[in-house]
Parts: sequence; C-alpha cells; structure tokens
Amino acid sequence: MVTVSRRFLWIAALLGSLLMSPAVLAQQKPRARALGVPFDGTPGELDAITDVKGVEVGHVTLISGEGKLEVGKGPVRTGVTAILPRGKVSADPVFAGWFSLNGNGEVTGTTWIEESGFLEGPMMITNTHSVGTVRDATIAWRLKRNLMNQPWALPVVAETWDGFLNDSNGFHVKDKHVVEALEGAKSGAVAEGNVGGGTGMTCFEFKGGIGTASRLLTKEQGGYTVGVLVQANFGVRHQLRIAGVPVGEEIKEGTFRPKEMGSIIVVVATDAPLLPHQLKRLARRVSLGLARVGSVAGNGSGDIFVAFSTANAGAAKPDKEAQLAMLPNDKMTPLFEGTVQATEEAIVNALIAAETMTGRDGNKAVALPHEQLRAVLKKYNRLVEKK
Amino acid sequence: MVTVSRRFLWIAALLGSLLMSPAVLAQQKPRARALGVPFDGTPGELDAITDVKGVEVGHVTLISGEGKLEVGKGPVRTGVTAILPRGKVSADPVFAGWFSLNGNGEVTGTTWIEESGFLEGPMMITNTHSVGTVRDATIAWRLKRNLMNQPWALPVVAETWDGFLNDSNGFHVKDKHVVEALEGAKSGAVAEGNVGGGTGMTCFEFKGGIGTASRLLTKEQGGYTVGVLVQANFGVRHQLRIAGVPVGEEIKEGTFRPKEMGSIIVVVATDAPLLPHQLKRLARRVSLGLARVGSVAGNGSGDIFVAFSTANAGAAKPDKEAQLAMLPNDKMTPLFEGTVQATEEAIVNALIAAETMTGRDGNKAVALPHEQLRAVLKKYNRLVEKK
Amino acid sequence: MVTVSRRFLWIAALLGSLLMSPAVLAQQKPRARALGVPFDGTPGELDAITDVKGVEVGHVTLISGEGKLEVGKGPVRTGVTAILPRGKVSADPVFAGWFSLNGNGEVTGTTWIEESGFLEGPMMITNTHSVGTVRDATIAWRLKRNLMNQPWALPVVAETWDGFLNDSNGFHVKDKHVVEALEGAKSGAVAEGNVGGGTGMTCFEFKGGIGTASRLLTKEQGGYTVGVLVQANFGVRHQLRIAGVPVGEEIKEGTFRPKEMGSIIVVVATDAPLLPHQLKRLARRVSLGLARVGSVAGNGSGDIFVAFSTANAGAAKPDKEAQLAMLPNDKMTPLFEGTVQATEEAIVNALIAAETMTGRDGNKAVALPHEQLRAVLKKYNRLVEKK
Amino acid sequence: MVTVSRRFLWIAALLGSLLMSPAVLAQQKPRARALGVPFDGTPGELDAITDVKGVEVGHVTLISGEGKLEVGKGPVRTGVTAILPRGKVSADPVFAGWFSLNGNGEVTGTTWIEESGFLEGPMMITNTHSVGTVRDATIAWRLKRNLMNQPWALPVVAETWDGFLNDSNGFHVKDKHVVEALEGAKSGAVAEGNVGGGTGMTCFEFKGGIGTASRLLTKEQGGYTVGVLVQANFGVRHQLRIAGVPVGEEIKEGTFRPKEMGSIIVVVATDAPLLPHQLKRLARRVSLGLARVGSVAGNGSGDIFVAFSTANAGAAKPDKEAQLAMLPNDKMTPLFEGTVQATEEAIVNALIAAETMTGRDGNKAVALPHEQLRAVLKKYNRLVEKK
Repeated sequence: MVTVSRRFLWIAALLGSLLMSPAVLAQQKPRARALGVPFDGTPGELDAITDVKGVEVGHVTLISGEGKLEVGKGPVRTGVTAILPRGKVSADPVFAGWFSLNGNGEVTGTTWIEESGFLEGPMMITNTHSVGTVRDATIAWRLKRNLMNQPWALPVVAETWDGFLNDSNGFHVKDKHVVEALEGAKSGAVAEGNVGGGTGMTCFEFKGGIGTASRLLTKEQGGYTVGVLVQANFGVRHQLRIAGVPVGEEIKEGTFRPKEMGSIIVVVATDAPLLPHQLKRLARRVSLGLARVGSVAGNGSGDIFVAFSTANAGAAKPDKEAQLAMLPNDKMTPLFEGTVQATEEAIVNALIAAETMTGRDGNKAVALPHEQLRAVLKKYNRLVEKK
Repeated sequence: MVTVSRRFLWIAALLGSLLMSPAVLAQQKPRARALGVPFDGTPGELDAITDVKGVEVGHVTLISGEGKLEVGKGPVRTGVTAILPRGKVSADPVFAGWFSLNGNGEVTGTTWIEESGFLEGPMMITNTHSVGTVRDATIAWRLKRNLMNQPWALPVVAETWDGFLNDSNGFHVKDKHVVEALEGAKSGAVAEGNVGGGTGMTCFEFKGGIGTASRLLTKEQGGYTVGVLVQANFGVRHQLRIAGVPVGEEIKEGTFRPKEMGSIIVVVATDAPLLPHQLKRLARRVSLGLARVGSVAGNGSGDIFVAFSTANAGAAKPDKEAQLAMLPNDKMTPLFEGTVQATEEAIVNALIAAETMTGRDGNKAVALPHEQLRAVLKKYNRLVEKK
Repeated sequence: MVTVSRRFLWIAALLGSLLMSPAVLAQQKPRARALGVPFDGTPGELDAITDVKGVEVGHVTLISGEGKLEVGKGPVRTGVTAILPRGKVSADPVFAGWFSLNGNGEVTGTTWIEESGFLEGPMMITNTHSVGTVRDATIAWRLKRNLMNQPWALPVVAETWDGFLNDSNGFHVKDKHVVEALEGAKSGAVAEGNVGGGTGMTCFEFKGGIGTASRLLTKEQGGYTVGVLVQANFGVRHQLRIAGVPVGEEIKEGTFRPKEMGSIIVVVATDAPLLPHQLKRLARRVSLGLARVGSVAGNGSGDIFVAFSTANAGAAKPDKEAQLAMLPNDKMTPLFEGTVQATEEAIVNALIAAETMTGRDGNKAVALPHEQLRAVLKKYNRLVEKK
Repeated sequence: MVTVSRRFLWIAALLGSLLMSPAVLAQQKPRARALGVPFDGTPGELDAITDVKGVEVGHVTLISGEGKLEVGKGPVRTGVTAILPRGKVSADPVFAGWFSLNGNGEVTGTTWIEESGFLEGPMMITNTHSVGTVRDATIAWRLKRNLMNQPWALPVVAETWDGFLNDSNGFHVKDKHVVEALEGAKSGAVAEGNVGGGTGMTCFEFKGGIGTASRLLTKEQGGYTVGVLVQANFGVRHQLRIAGVPVGEEIKEGTFRPKEMGSIIVVVATDAPLLPHQLKRLARRVSLGLARVGSVAGNGSGDIFVAFSTANAGAAKPDKEAQLAMLPNDKMTPLFEGTVQATEEAIVNALIAAETMTGRDGNKAVALPHEQLRAVLKKYNRLVEKK
C-alpha cells in the first residue's frame, strides 16, 4: 500500500520545491472564510491549531483499492493524525482537561488526564478499530525517542468510525503508519479534509474529515490564541446549519444515512495559562460550537473533546514545586467565545476542504458543493461578498 | 407587600371567571412562534412543560417599591417558581439527572439526585440569595403535607441572580411565598416572562425571566413529550441569535452590561421512560439549545440543568424490586433533538413574554421589541409569514 | 434558649481566665491517642485542623429541653460549626476540591467549587434541616463583613441528620447562631464531641459529633501539614473497627439502630500548594480513612468531603495572571497517607470526646466507654501502653 | 514461546483427567480463609466471581526466559485475563458502572459505559503496554464470533504494570493470546496468583496477581451474590494490613520498592438487578475494600473498578422498550458490605495464591509466607484456628 503522505513527500522532493508540500496544497484549497461564510471573532495567522506556538500536526493518509469490500483487503480509506502539543522533541507534558458530550466513542488515556491534570505525549486520532494499534505503537515510538514520563505510558488515542467508506474491520493502520504520522508532524498550515484520521470520514452526509481554525484574543483580553482541530464524522443532513442558515434543508443531494452513526473528536490548544480544571471548562465549550452547526449529539455519536495549554512549561517536573501562572477565571470568557467560534469554523472548514470520495462497495460521500453553499448563504442574506 | 399572584387570584375570584387567571393571561401574550419565529419540530398542545402529564407549575411574583435601593426595603423584583413533577399531592419521586454547563450557580440537592437517581419532591427556582429560605420552607411544606421520602429531606432549589433590578441582598422571599408557589401550582398554560423566580431577571441585556416550550415526538418515535422550563438570566447583547439570525448585532437599544453576570436554570420534563443515566444525557443536551441562541456559557453564568421523567411511577418504593420500563439508548436521539429545540424556544419565549421593567436605582431592562425582531428576521429571510 | 457557647463565654469572662474556654476544656478531655489507641504517622502540634496555619473553627452548641418531642419546641440538641480557611478577616478564596462517597446528604456550593476551583468564604456544618438558614445567614454575614467575592455568594454549607436526639423538624438554628459561630471562630485547639454541628450526632450507635486530627509530613516530604475535621454521624455498631480491631463486635451496649441513617462530613485542610484537581484527589482519600473504622458508606449515609489548601494566597484575584506554586503529583502520596490517617483518628477522636446524651423522647446515645475500649485493644494486642 | 495455559491443557489431556485442570489446581492451593484469616460475611460456593451465574473467566499465562532483560526477547512474565459477564456465547450487554479511585492507569471503553450504562462484550485485563493489542484483538474476536452490538466496538481493556518482573516494553502479548484467553474462559473455580494478566504482578512488595472472592446475601437481603476479581499490583510493604493486623510492619523480608508504582484493577459482578447508576455506587465501594488492606491509593497507582450486573438480560435490545427490575436503593447496603468484604478477601487471596517469582534482571518478588502470616495473626489474636 502506498500512503498518500509518502507520495506527496516524494513529489515534493522531485520538484525540489516547497510548492507542492501538503501544507501548501492545503492552503491552495479555498477555506470557509474565503468562500464568504461569515464567522465571529479574529482568527490567528494560519487560522489553524498550529497558531498556538509549538503545536505540530502530522497526517498519514491511507487510500487504496476500490469496489467490493473484502475484509482485510480493502478498499482502504483511513489514516492517522498526530497532534504534538510541544512538538516531537519534547517530553514535557501539558496541562489538559477533557469532556464527553456523548460517549459513544473512545479516547484512551483520559482517566490519567483527569487524575493528573496532564496530557503526556502526543494526542493521536484514527479510526475506531485501529485505536489499539495506534496506542501501543505510540508507546513504542515514545520509548524509542526517549519521551517517557513514567516507566509506563498511557497514550491518548481517539477515533471516529469510517466504516461507510473504509474496510474498517480490516485493521489497515499499522505500526509504521503511526511512526510516520508522528515523525512527519510539523508546525505551519494543516492539511484539511480527506487526510490523516479524517480520510474516510463523513459529516452531515457530506464528505467530512479534518478541519482546523483558531482565534486570537485582543491585547486587552490577554492576546492569547486558541486553536481547534476536528476530526468531523457526525450529523445527519437536515440538521446542518452554517452561519445560522439551514443549509441541510436547502442542499439535499447525496444523502445516504437516515440515522446518526458518526462522531467528532475535537482538540483545543491554547497558550493561555490555564490549569487543568480550567481546561476542562474550555473542553466543555466545544459542545456549543457543535450546536452552532446543528448537532444534537445523537446516540450513535462519540463527541469527545480534549483541551490543553502549552503555557507553564516544566510544570510536570516530578522533583520540586512548580512555579505556575494562572489566568483568572474572570478572564476566561473570551477564551470560551474563541473556542466556540473556532470549533464552528473548523467543522465548516472540514466540510469545505473534503472532496467527494467513493469507498467500499461503491459507497459515496459527496463534497459540500461550494457554489451551492454560497447561493444558500446569499438567500438568507448571510454571504460575505468580496469587496 | 402584596404579591402579584394573590392580586390575580383576588381579581379572578371577583370576576367569578377563569378569563383573567394567570394561565389565560399568559396565553393572551403573543409567543415567539405566533410572532413568526421559525422553530424546528412539533410542539405539544400548550407548547409548555405542562404538556408532560402530571407536571404542575406555580409562581409567586413579588413586585413592590421603586427608586433608590435600600437594602432590606426594596425595590423588590423577585419571586419563586415551583415545578412539581407529579403534582402537589404525590410524594412519588421521579427518575432524574443533572448537568452543569457552567457552575457559577447553585442547585441544592444535586448530590442526592446523582447518587440515588431520583428527584424527591418539587424543584424550586428563586433568586440567588433566597435559596436557603426556599430550601428550608420546602422541607416544612413537605413535612406538613406529609410528602417526605426519608426522615430528612434534601430539596432541589435553583437560582439566578436578579441584583440588577431587585434588592437581592434584602432577602425578600419569605416562607409564606414558598408555600404559596407550591400550593398555587397547577397544570395547564404556564405564565411566562416577569413571573415567579424569573421576575427580576434579564437576558442578553433584554428583560428575561420564565419561558417554556415542548416537543411532541411522532408515533414512530414513541409519541413521547419533552417539556422545558427556563429561568433565563444570561447573555450579553451581541451574542443573541434567534433562528440563526444575529439579532443581538441588529438590535442594540437598551444595553447595560458589558460582562456576563447572569445564569440560566433549565428544567426538562419527559414522559419517556428514561433511567437516571439517560436523563443526565438529556440534561447535557440543554447546552446545545443555549448555544443556538448564542450562549458561550460565560464565566459569570450558572448554567445548570435538571431533567426528570414522569414515567415509572412507584420506582422509588423502598421495600421491593421495582418493575420498570426503559427506552433503548438507540431511540433517544429524537428526545435529544426535542430537548435542544424546546430549550431554544423556551428561551425565546421568555424574551418575548417579558415586559420592560424598571427596578432598583432606576435600572431598566427593556423588552425585546417584537416588531423590530420581526423586521430583523425578515431581513435574513427567516420570518414565518402568516398565511 | 441559652446556647452553650454563650454560657461558656460568660463563665470564662466571670473567671477572668482562659482556663475554662472551650479549647482548654477540649484539651482536658482525653483524646484517642492518650487512651492508647495506636495510629500511624506524626500529628501536628494540636493534632487538629487548626495545625494548618490560618484555619479557624467556631462552634455554636444548642442544648435545651428534654423529654417528649414537640416539633418546634424541642428537645434541642443541635448547632453550627464554622471553618474559616484563612480566618474571619480574609475574603481571599482557597483552592478546593470535593468528593461524594455516598451522596445522601447536602453540601451546597459544590457546583461552584468544581467549576472555579475555589472555596469562597467559610465552610459551615449544621443539621440537615437548617442548611437553608445557615446558607442565607452566611451570605448576610459576608455582606456585613464585606467579604464577598462576586456580587452574589454561593456558600458551602454541609449537614448531617440529628433527628434521633434533636427536634430536627423544629428548625432551631437561627441567623444569630450562624453569626455567633462565625464570629467565635478562632485558631488553637478545637472542641470535640457534642459541640457545634456535631451536638446531636451519633456514630456507630455511640454518641458521635465533631472530631479532628492532623498529620505533619517530614522535611523530606515537604514538611506540609494536613488537618482534618469531621462531623461524624454514621455507622452501625457491628461495623466499628478501631486500629483494625473489631471493637463493634466486642462492645454491644447501647445499640439502637439496625440500619444506617447517618452521614459524615469531612473537611481536609492543608498548607501544601495543591491545585483544585489535586485537592479533589485528597478529598477522595477520605473514603479510605472511613473504611479503616469500618464504614461501608451505607445507602442512608451522606458521606461528602471537601479539601482545601491555604497555600497560593491571592490566586483568586480577578484582574491579573496569578503566580502559583504546585506540588508535583509525584510528591502527593505522603499527603494521601496523612489524609487517610488523620481522617481515621479524627473519627475516633469524635467518639472518644463525645459524652452520653439523652435527647428527644428519651432517646439515648451512650459514649464509647474508654476503659472497655482499652480492654478490647489489649485483647488484640493493639493497646499502646504508657511508658 | 509456550504458554502455561496450553501446557496445562496438554498435560490435562495426557492424563485424561480433570484432576490437573487449572481450576482444580487453583483449588488445591490453600486460600486465605483456609489459612485462618478471618473475614466478615458469607462467601458463595466457590468464593469466586464465578459464583455469579453466567460469568466466565479465562487466563493466558506467558512465562519464558530468565536473566538479563533484552527488550523484545524477555524474560516474559505476563498474560491476559478475560471476564465474560454472560459467557462467551452471548452478545447481550450487561448494565455497568465504573469508578477511578486513582487514575494512573487505563481502562478503555469506560466513556461508553458511562454514557450508555452498558458493558458490551468481555472485560479484559493485561499489562500496561499490551492494552492496544488486546483491544483490537478483542474486536477481531467479536467480529469473528458475531458478537457485535454496534457496527463498531469499544472494548473494555484494563491493565496494571509488570515491568519489575516482565519485559513489559517487549510487547509479548499477541492477538492469539487474546483469542486463547477468550476461548478458554469458563465458569467454575478461578485460578489465582501468577496467572493471566496477573502473572508478573507484585502487591505490597510480595508477589501479587489474580485473586477472587464472593459474598452471598441472606434470603432477607434478597439472596443475591456479589463476586469480585482483582488484578493486584499495588502497595508498599509497611502499609499492608490483613484482618486489621499490621502484617506489613511484621513481615519485612523481600521488600524491593520504596515507592508506589503499582495498580489494582477490580471487577465486581452481581446478579442483583442494579441500574447503571447503582453499579457505579457499587464500584465506588471497592475503594473501601482496598483501604482495609492498607491502601492509600498512591500517586503511581491506577486503581480503577468496573461493576456489572447479570440481571436484566435483554435490556440492551435497540428496538423496543425494555422491561426491567431494579433493586431499591434502600436495599443496597448489604451489597455494599459484600463488595467491600469480597474485595478485601480477593486481594488477600491473590497474595496467598501467588508464588515467588524471579523475573527480568533477576528481580524477585517473594510470596507472602503462609506460616509467618498465621503467626502474625495469632500474635494479634486474629487467627481463626481450625476446630
């Protein structure tokens, strides 16, 4: 099997150029904002989780085969996404908190996040049935890289289910793909849509996947950044709202599922000095961003969110009292607002970036049609026209 | 002090007529739906929490004095609302669950709800500094009415803060008001706006207060009802969205507070046979309804929700195995959808019903102007025109 | 009604002496350790919660009437206990966390502790049906003393049920008693047994009430202190173990209740710089201390624990980033051990200090007989003999 | 590598006899009760989790190599334990609840237990770094056996860390071992000590591992059974108490670790008709059983507990209202007592059954010496002498 990320790396090498790197490719796709979708708040430079300094993201995308499902053979439409809070050279844990809006899903390692207040190591996202492989391979990688915090590791691995397009019972994610996602992680623009863990995902019965966005607080608010990355795989069509507009009732093409069977994993990063209980507050706000695009967190959905702060480096040192900074609770509301807004935008970005995909048994998830979306927004007087 | 509810009762008696009862008065006010605000889903007959059979609601409204604040004297703009899951003659507990989206508030008795799975006795809502009075007076009432479940009682009393309009440090709610709210509780239409615990509340810098709505599931979905009652006291203006339309950015009159200082208490009732852990799921969905009107659950807000089911009467009998019905998790999504929709509508109903009020020190909260709202909805092509 | 604390104050004044103050009286009673009960670990100077610098405790004890219960008249066997983390002159909140082992009880204000990470104001303990009075009176006191942290207050008030001895449906705790407990709070030795909120309590079918103890960590462990105060009102006789010895099976006199109807409130204080999520960890360890004396946390029991840290003064300032210290998780185990040990000892201290009391309808709770306890410990080779 | 369970099966086949089956071998070892350790309560027939009808347990034990650690080669001292609530032929989920006393550990699938109230499929226990392998292999087994409840599976896999004896970074548990543990599961007596997931575990610096016990309620209490299985890997020596006796201070041989680095996983099974929130209550009581043997739930410990009920078969049917039975809260106390007692006994049984083991780098964990234990119990007048 040839992984897409490798293919991209090879092409990039051939051209001797950065022009075709995944990051640039990602930027060449239009994003929601560029299409005229109105959003509140001010995004960071990249409008991505990587606007939070130090955060690195790596994707491995596995696409191969087509036609009838043969379990173990394919078609394969899946992958792995790695988010490294302080980059891949640091073993320094970050303060973290998590929240489950609807727990029909898995994020391993949350019990230790809750207890210790720390996220140790990277956060990984993949498909439901590859969580185990990714978990143990992440331990092996941390052992090899000498990035352990205790003699044992309790990796944080999340998932959504891609069985509509992918041979998800074929266990196609292998140890090497995990290493590749981790080693390939970098700062800068983040590829969106059909990439990494999001490769085979669907959202509101459109093609879904990875999306990201960020918000920058004003100087008076502290100048902090909050960045969000989603693996969006939830929703039935009629629920979809964009910028308050009932898009799902206006665009009915390509629906395929009357019942919620998806999920969404959301990672929130910030450089604001938040303590674990404050990060749990942030994680809880993700729910409100989901609601803005129409989610009711259906029974079949695993809607689980992890928030971390890159501030307070060195806080986890085991041998001495740590000296910390803490943002007052009273100053958290702008971060809540930013989290809600960036979550909303990251989901819409995933929908905008994702491209129509045909997977197992010819199952097909169509991309949200950009021009039709613009028309609907215009109908409701919500399209932001280019000046 | 003359309480409004008493005055109404006296007038009603004088006229020898039901026409002027609070319920009818309540119905005479236009509600959001009648004004042309679009909502998803099908409401119950009354579009109120009392569409869930057995549920009774009582309000005591305390309004007196005006002008400069004299702590302990007034002006008084407060009250008490009582919700009785099985009416005031039954001591039979209901299965319940709760959720705190942002816990800058109080709901007493939640620890026992969490542990036992039951809500014993009525749920009361008042202003922040009267929770203690209401709690102990509720015990006294239950003792007198012989409605105790254990030798001790752990009443569920919620609050939001009305200090912008009310002399909230004056402790004006007295034991007798609590009894009055409980004894006056009834089924049928529910008074909204400046009544009961909601009397002095504000919402998105408009006048807020009590609102209610309901959803009726289809026969295929089980035919269940979910009803919601809110005491809405949250939000800053620019956040307000109605039917996805940025109303708060369009109507700027009468703002008075740059910072979130409010709260919202939400009670969800259903006749669907849900177990305690399922009711917690329902309570969590209230967050999504709040998000639809623009909430980010600011730091100052006490956003706390209680959900109960009137099904499974007799489940709390202490002496023998109870025989219960349980709705499959797989059939809960329509209830989630109904909860989100009814929460959204109940909040808008509170805003529509509330009337401009001037309180302590001349502080004034204006009513959401109905015609202006219609104009804004029309601007965004979201007004439901009468046929 | 004459309150005992007032009587004591009057006698103390008359004698012009500290000799008869409750603190000294408390010290004149033997404590568990002095009787030869073996405990692990090293206590602080007072072996009391007040070993944590700054912590003040005040009791108001209400004892009047005897004979047949007349609701509202008596007999009265109740009171209020106030714990002020930074003493009664400071409004500076402390980091806090809480845990409910069995939630058949009430501690108001926990939702805000959970959300904010802070305990604002004092923690109060009383009987179940006086929680409301104590709550609102605590607000009034904080308003008067100018000790508010927000425009509203959400006091932390806990309870256990004293209906076996006290006219608990008579609502005998009044606002003035709350003020008295708060104003009377002080550092130094803490009265134990039939005092304050613990006045009418029973424990393992012996007389129970207030107890306290502390542990001092070694210099290598950080030299921190952990102090515990309990209002002990739980357990049936046969369960009681002291120092691992089945005391409840050996001393069978005076039993009166086949079924758990009690509760225990535990307050843990420390000067170790713990964050809110770490204090929740500490609170959870209280369970283990309860288990050591034989608790199974029966269904009727409200076993609820609050832990706070007096370190990090000023952390709650609303206007700027706070600079904090944090103990590494890796160094918390000795604090866990201290919490377990001090909880165990505080409960035994409550049993040792409490004196036989006859209450309503002649109901009688006998004191744990000291000499018999020593004999039982000796039988099992666990008595610490005086040298 | 030859797995011990296979070797046993082979020997058993050779002898054409049941006499040497692991179950019988397990029974041939003395258990705590037989040695004269006093316990409260009445055990079931097997004094094992399998006293709860339908529950099956399977172990795979991996022991090979000795001497110096070569990562990936060995020495190997590990395994897998499978607990199947309704046996290996049923896909019918059981109601379940869970609790983390100290979350330095992993139990995957808990988010879905919390949300749905159900444990779907088996519960697996292994070493920390094999959780991923066991998780995905359990999915594969359920797919093959046609035991899926949703299109995806979220297996419950727990762990403790065996790195003192085992090459735990060598990932020696393979898919086939998982299948073997599942397929080998059976009712009847349960092998204890150095078996299954417990193979390489240590406890209070003695050799630890798997232990089990049960309690049978009286007919008046409902006649229910509660069974417990532990994988015990926690504690430092001085903490150990057995039957209240300070055994850890009396037997000091063979200590090797000054600091808590262990964990304990506890599974509680009952046939009492408990709902999910009631099972969470049961899970929380496990803490009290741990405390009885001296645990303080140190920072390094992953003390995580899952409780399930085999009653209410068919409750998880997705298509119609389930008819359930529920035990009144008021009747739960005997189950709490049984859980505490059985947890205590299961841990002691693990210590009694485990045999001295030498593992990687010659690290050695000695068995708790039976005769010395009896002598210590006798010293404290707690030995139950044979009649």
